[in-house]
Amino acid sequence: MSNLKFTFSGESKNATKFVGKARDFEIAIDEPPVLGGNDEAPNPVEYTLASLAGCLNVVAYIVAKERNITIESLKIDLEGNLNPAKFLGQDMTNRAGFQNIDVKVYIKSDVSPEVLADWLRVVKERCPVTDNLANDTPINVELIS
Amino acid sequence: MSNLKFTFSGESKNATKFVGKARDFEIAIDEPPVLGGNDEAPNPVEYTLASLAGCLNVVAYIVAKERNITIESLKIDLEGNLNPAKFLGQDMTNRAGFQNIDVKVYIKSDVSPEVLADWLRVVKERCPVTDNLANDTPINVELIS
Repeated sequence: MSNLKFTFSGESKNATKFVGKARDFEIAIDEPPVLGGNDEAPNPVEYTLASLAGCLNVVAYIVAKERNITIESLKIDLEGNLNPAKFLGQDMTNRAGFQNIDVKVYIKSDVSPEVLADWLRVVKERCPVTDNLANDTPINVELIS
Repeated sequence: MSNLKFTFSGESKNATKFVGKARDFEIAIDEPPVLGGNDEAPNPVEYTLASLAGCLNVVAYIVAKERNITIESLKIDLEGNLNPAKFLGQDMTNRAGFQNIDVKVYIKSDVSPEVLADWLRVVKERCPVTDNLANDTPINVELIS
């Protein structure tokens, strides 16, 4: 299969709300009041976590199928902490984004913990969003004014 | 301000669909048919792009306010390409995720291109999602079976 292209295009509605489309799907982003928004949608970093969860789910099933593992249920909890000081311009010492992302994968299956441990190792290695977050991804921003 | 915690928790509905919650907001993720899904929601990497767009929007306004720049309109187009070979287990040569992300920021404002160029430099530096994608972010995955 050749390269796949994905896009998202949209416009700012105000200082915290942004609405755009990925194909025919509309996605709205806002901030909670503590970050200056009106809380009309999930915030940007919550979508980062959702993106990671959805990607782990897809790759979980692909690798399970290859290995004849039956997934009976799969739940994923994700948590990330960030210090808003850099984002808000108060202190440039810390990084702007999540310091790390903690993921708990709750799985019921028909195989041993040892088989699952190797399954998880491969899922992480082949998950596109894990790759983009865990490793450097060039972000090229062009300004058109 | 102390660290802020963000979470997303959900469960797999099938091999491509995952539904979870960030606070009270439900977010559904699926894949298009070409990637084995039923196309009921945006896919994981489309949410990655939306997350980045929403974050750039928020930081754009924060930095503009600090510099007395009036943003009259702001549109953002994002595009990412990935080779699905690693994700699908066909070839482990290339990276799993986006090779890079191309962002076009269309802005109308009351300042010169030179002022905007420096504004954009700072926006990128302080944007949490740009940071998490552009730089290494530890992803700690715990398996509970």
